Amino acid sequence: MISDKMMGFVRSSSVIRAMFEEGKKMAAIHGAENVYDFSLGNPNVEAPKEIKDAIIDVLETTDSKTLHGYPNNAGFEDVRLALANYSNKIHNTDYTASNLVITTGAAAAMNIIFKSILNPNDEVIVFTPYFGEYKAYISNYDGVIVEISPNIETFQPNLEELEQKITNKTKAVIINTPNNPTGVIYSAETLEKLANILNKKQEETGETIYLVSDEPYRELFFEDIVLPFVPNFYDNTFIAYSYSKSLSLPGERVGHVTVHSKMDDFDNVIAALSVANRISGFVNAPTLWQKVIPYVLDTKVDIEIYKKNRDTLYDMITELGYECVKPDGAFYLFPKSLIADDREFCAAAKEFRLLVVPGSTFGCPGHFRIAYCVSYETIINAKESFKALKEKFSR
Amino acid sequence: MISDKMMGFVRSSSVIRAMFEEGKKMAAIHGAENVYDFSLGNPNVEAPKEIKDAIIDVLETTDSKTLHGYPNNAGFEDVRLALANYSNKIHNTDYTASNLVITTGAAAAMNIIFKSILNPNDEVIVFTPYFGEYKAYISNYDGVIVEISPNIETFQPNLEELEQKITNKTKAVIINTPNNPTGVIYSAETLEKLANILNKKQEETGETIYLVSDEPYRELFFEDIVLPFVPNFYDNTFIAYSYSKSLSLPGERVGHVTVHSKMDDFDNVIAALSVANRISGFVNAPTLWQKVIPYVLDTKVDIEIYKKNRDTLYDMITELGYECVKPDGAFYLFPKSLIADDREFCAAAKEFRLLVVPGSTFGCPGHFRIAYCVSYETIINAKESFKALKEKFSR
Repeated sequence: MISDKMMGFVRSSSVIRAMFEEGKKMAAIHGAENVYDFSLGNPNVEAPKEIKDAIIDVLETTDSKTLHGYPNNAGFEDVRLALANYSNKIHNTDYTASNLVITTGAAAAMNIIFKSILNPNDEVIVFTPYFGEYKAYISNYDGVIVEISPNIETFQPNLEELEQKITNKTKAVIINTPNNPTGVIYSAETLEKLANILNKKQEETGETIYLVSDEPYRELFFEDIVLPFVPNFYDNTFIAYSYSKSLSLPGERVGHVTVHSKMDDFDNVIAALSVANRISGFVNAPTLWQKVIPYVLDTKVDIEIYKKNRDTLYDMITELGYECVKPDGAFYLFPKSLIADDREFCAAAKEFRLLVVPGSTFGCPGHFRIAYCVSYETIINAKESFKALKEKFSR
Repeated sequence: MISDKMMGFVRSSSVIRAMFEEGKKMAAIHGAENVYDFSLGNPNVEAPKEIKDAIIDVLETTDSKTLHGYPNNAGFEDVRLALANYSNKIHNTDYTASNLVITTGAAAAMNIIFKSILNPNDEVIVFTPYFGEYKAYISNYDGVIVEISPNIETFQPNLEELEQKITNKTKAVIINTPNNPTGVIYSAETLEKLANILNKKQEETGETIYLVSDEPYRELFFEDIVLPFVPNFYDNTFIAYSYSKSLSLPGERVGHVTVHSKMDDFDNVIAALSVANRISGFVNAPTLWQKVIPYVLDTKVDIEIYKKNRDTLYDMITELGYECVKPDGAFYLFPKSLIADDREFCAAAKEFRLLVVPGSTFGCPGHFRIAYCVSYETIINAKESFKALKEKFSR
């Protein structure tokens, strides 16, 4: 009785749900501490204590009818202004409150962007491997996903293939840096080349091509680098931002869209995002969380915890003989699977109480994702299992 | 550059936005206290103080990683169980945690219901007058809205016309009691007749017809009545519930879907709702608010404030000569406009600093909506304006 389209989504989702259920069963049999669950991107680092203090201060100082009432669908004007000013300070942008729409996280941000721009059959280009939910976000508005094959030596975007695959149906290109599932960061040079291609193609086709920069991991990088700011490279850029990972608040659903001041058709785009936020059923991002965010713009989770996890796990598995690009950000490793069939490989990993996700889920077979947003002890204790898994496939 | 479909929504939304902007301008010119804004359903009654206490208790007693982390997409299991048990106690239902999906309010609930059940061109029946957003919620999933003409003497649903308009393309019927914009409540007798028609038609066509009961105003009624519980009348019933009005929390976005235990294809429907919640970008309802709700299930805003507003305003305008059905719930009156053209009438009302919404917005011309979720003083002070407006059209 459910719709045909939803039946397809339910069927493909049930694979992941089955894994989740199996993990729970394994924990019941072996004890939770003996199951090494690297399957989910659910942060294991505490939210900063400033969050709690900010909530209490907001409750003490804000009139209840303002705090819990309907704001503008785009978000409270004072909060949008605070976010704009913060971006102007950090990234040297020229934003006002009008450049932002506050959303229930990056997932909502992506959805209202695609609802605003996609006509049926418009193409959206993604670089494999990519976060599997993009498929649904594009399909929700009857768009068509176009995959670019991976550079498995570096996991930098394959720009030659991008250039070939842009057509006059191309409405948008998604990037995600630091990346899920590879953890890699795109360099300024890469972004400049990407922007040159998009600008050239826009001129050729006479059509706007939007760059959608999905940035839930923007604050999660480990080396002494300056993370390039995507809108500095290309005018028609949307950012889908989230506080889920930078503040360990994934359940609370708060983030925003920012729109480049020089975006084509700026006023209509902003109006469309705001209306899309309303009619899609978000209406507005939760108001208490909107009011909390300006208190914690300079606050981040303790990145050193993730860095230590990355270093320990990367060293461990490469010493055991796994091949893996060493990433600079996010909280994922994306090694090669030890056999070509990554689904079979991840099924075999369960014998050793290891839960990892097949690369096929991210459009990149022959690999698997390890989400290391877990406790340090889980990583140490998983060593014997990674070793036994390696030995199984070396016989 | 925005999509054709969104351009349509932006154009129709700009009428309401223009009204909102004009209200702000009027407030700047005449002073906010001299503008009588009855246009929005934004509660003017404080959230109960128990809310703040519950938030602080949740923050003190819940581990941060659980509180702010990802729950199941349907919501925390313990919270769903608490909501199920509460329904079982109050409404004598047989719910478990599996009958509920916690949502970011009733708007999200309606959207995930329609995303789950509608194939393109499926028909959804609404009774005029109806909340205008239903049009978008249905169109989002390429459904077709079918309007039933109003009973303007009672604003009870026109069941004869319903029976005629059900076809084998009918996938759902929406009801909303207590009603926006009329405030009327459907009696048990009405719901029984409605259910009989739907059951008969299901047998005739062999197709499931879902009843979608939109219930943000369920707790807002004024007389000593027992509000009929819709799922008691019809098995294929969804409830879209919200705490926005019962607890004055519209900005916080928390509500739920409940699914009747005897609904056709129950397991797939529940799976679809949960997946729809995820892929639409809601992911899950804000987790802090999920944890707060079980503390305040027996708590309601002070209904007497709304009752006093209703009585005062109803008596005032009917004494002035306006014709209006006296409603038992919600916080709206829906009188006849004094001329046939309700848009022209509402434009004229602005001359007297009165902001009210044309009935056409609700699919029912010749009427206008007064949202009386305002301060008592606003109602008293608006009397001269309602009087002058009446005199203008009595000349």
